[in-house]
Amino acid sequence: MSATFEVLGQDGRARRGVLHTAHGDVQTPAFMPVGTAATVKGLMPDQVAQTGADILLGNTYHLMLRPGADRVESFGGLHRFMAWEKPILTDSGGFQVMSLAGLRTIDEEGVTFRAHTDGSSHRLTPESAMDIQRQLDSDITMVLDECISYPAEKDEALESMRRSMRWAERCREAFVERPGYGLFGIIQGGIYDDLRAESVDALQSMNFDGLAVGGLAVGEGQAAMLSVLDGLAPVLPPALPHYLMGVGTPDDIVKAVARGIDMFDCVLPTRSGRTGRGYSRTGHINIKNARHAVDAAPLVDGCVCPTCSKFSRGYLHHLFRCGEMLGPILLTLHNLSFYQQLMAEIREAIASAQFATFLENWNIVQDTSETT
Amino acid sequence: MSATFEVLGQDGRARRGVLHTAHGDVQTPAFMPVGTAATVKGLMPDQVAQTGADILLGNTYHLMLRPGADRVESFGGLHRFMAWEKPILTDSGGFQVMSLAGLRTIDEEGVTFRAHTDGSSHRLTPESAMDIQRQLDSDITMVLDECISYPAEKDEALESMRRSMRWAERCREAFVERPGYGLFGIIQGGIYDDLRAESVDALQSMNFDGLAVGGLAVGEGQAAMLSVLDGLAPVLPPALPHYLMGVGTPDDIVKAVARGIDMFDCVLPTRSGRTGRGYSRTGHINIKNARHAVDAAPLVDGCVCPTCSKFSRGYLHHLFRCGEMLGPILLTLHNLSFYQQLMAEIREAIASAQFATFLENWNIVQDTSETT
Repeated sequence: MSATFEVLGQDGRARRGVLHTAHGDVQTPAFMPVGTAATVKGLMPDQVAQTGADILLGNTYHLMLRPGADRVESFGGLHRFMAWEKPILTDSGGFQVMSLAGLRTIDEEGVTFRAHTDGSSHRLTPESAMDIQRQLDSDITMVLDECISYPAEKDEALESMRRSMRWAERCREAFVERPGYGLFGIIQGGIYDDLRAESVDALQSMNFDGLAVGGLAVGEGQAAMLSVLDGLAPVLPPALPHYLMGVGTPDDIVKAVARGIDMFDCVLPTRSGRTGRGYSRTGHINIKNARHAVDAAPLVDGCVCPTCSKFSRGYLHHLFRCGEMLGPILLTLHNLSFYQQLMAEIREAIASAQFATFLENWNIVQDTSETT
Repeated sequence: MSATFEVLGQDGRARRGVLHTAHGDVQTPAFMPVGTAATVKGLMPDQVAQTGADILLGNTYHLMLRPGADRVESFGGLHRFMAWEKPILTDSGGFQVMSLAGLRTIDEEGVTFRAHTDGSSHRLTPESAMDIQRQLDSDITMVLDECISYPAEKDEALESMRRSMRWAERCREAFVERPGYGLFGIIQGGIYDDLRAESVDALQSMNFDGLAVGGLAVGEGQAAMLSVLDGLAPVLPPALPHYLMGVGTPDDIVKAVARGIDMFDCVLPTRSGRTGRGYSRTGHINIKNARHAVDAAPLVDGCVCPTCSKFSRGYLHHLFRCGEMLGPILLTLHNLSFYQQLMAEIREAIASAQFATFLENWNIVQDTSETT
């Protein structure tokens, strides 16, 4: 039995569920912090768990380069290597090959690229992507897909989507079934609803354990993204978890949940934390702004995260001003806690059939949000 | 009643004691991690406490510049500002003025200098040093002393020591007594035993709560340092805690305890941790060395610190290779735990009258230590 998904409840299109994996359960809607190079930057694994995260995302591209999939396997897999005992989902590397690597050559068999780290040459195929993720011991493996740049003409989106579907089939063949381990397909097709629907059709015949929406959050804007999700909602198989890759802001997440999405990942809370941006319900806080220097209040009033429960804005401002490591650490902790708290409230709202009200209140607050 | 010291036991010249302060007790011999800018670099305060530290050192020079003593006071003092509820000792700023600041002018009244951060002009006098440390809410305040460079001719050392003694007297006058808060004098006199003895004499008449040995760990080498401590041992007032400032390596600490020293501070465990050097009883581990890449063993076998109990050398090597923040964090945690574990063993050895044996075994291991 591979990783399985249970829908516990539904409210409108929003779903409350649980994904069962070899390393434990993931309550959905779920947000996955990004642990690119076998670490969520700046945090101990137990601190990440304390924010409420059930599952982490690891980046196959980074890990295959450093320390290498063989190395991670020799250490007993990614969980043991990084001391994270809960579930892990890994992407296939395709997206980072397109966004980070140099000198890419794509052919029907796969993609050859040069590493951004040292210029060394590497190759990813659907088969090797499956093998690498098996070596990493990912609970959820993602198929290798071709990621095109935005905007793309329809023919280009069509050709690319069809190649991704052929690759998905090869991934399905190559994936080694293990109890509690799952394989997700990725829906492509750009901003074209008919291509997206064709992609869902193709993937449904391949018996995946979940479907992801790929190729979004690449510059198309929230309206275009939500429009794609609106088009997909009626055709997404209800029994499978729906994962929106690389998304997004808290507002993106709330609105995607309303359209039937169950899983998310994004570098925003961690990356923003390192640059001094804190999240709150009423807008961003740029802690480097001089106004915060004398402020004895926490980053967010009433927040129970380890940062807000002990430290003032004035202290956080001081840490960033002095370039102290603890500044990025504390803002990362707060932001991840903020995201997980949001997911918990979303799950609670769906479970109690109050998601429409939650969404209404959310939109009112969003309209008055500001950066301080 | 100011901060008070109790000698609980003695073994040779080594002493087992406890320093009672407004924010709690400090078991001695004690090692104080350095929290320069209101943070032990990279660690949360509770992580520092978990290493076993009873007390932190804060740097007056850094804090008076950023965020400023008035600011720290307005936040309720350094303990509350940085969320460290245990004792804090602050240096007087004199040493950093000499080592970091630009354009120094010393006169009988005090020292004027330009900040290394922004070139702004500042002045420290014995009186302002007391006032700043009161604003910081330090449990243990250090007198302002003049720090000369090494090597110094005897006349220079004499003149400087006598000025430091005049400043010590002014500090004693200016210090505001508060229950549980103490003021330590600083013994100067370079490497000259008679000057050191004169300095102790002068300070003894001023009724300090502890005496520090200043002006060492400035390049004189361990042999010269231990020779100064040997000269001082018979004249140090036994009822007061003896604090060796800025020292040192684990070996320095063990040998200074054997000469009657009770308190230490040093940036070595934290700074070395950030550059990938780990401490062990049998030598240093440079985790960046390629040999560690494939090593599934912990940094130090049997070490119960949060780093060694969960992570392999191979993982730590990977973090440093990728420039991940978690590498410096984990090595800092290990090194501080190593130092505190050493202090705990030293205290135990003295308490059980086994310090001579401890020292003998220590020296045997030191002779065979190596860097790996």
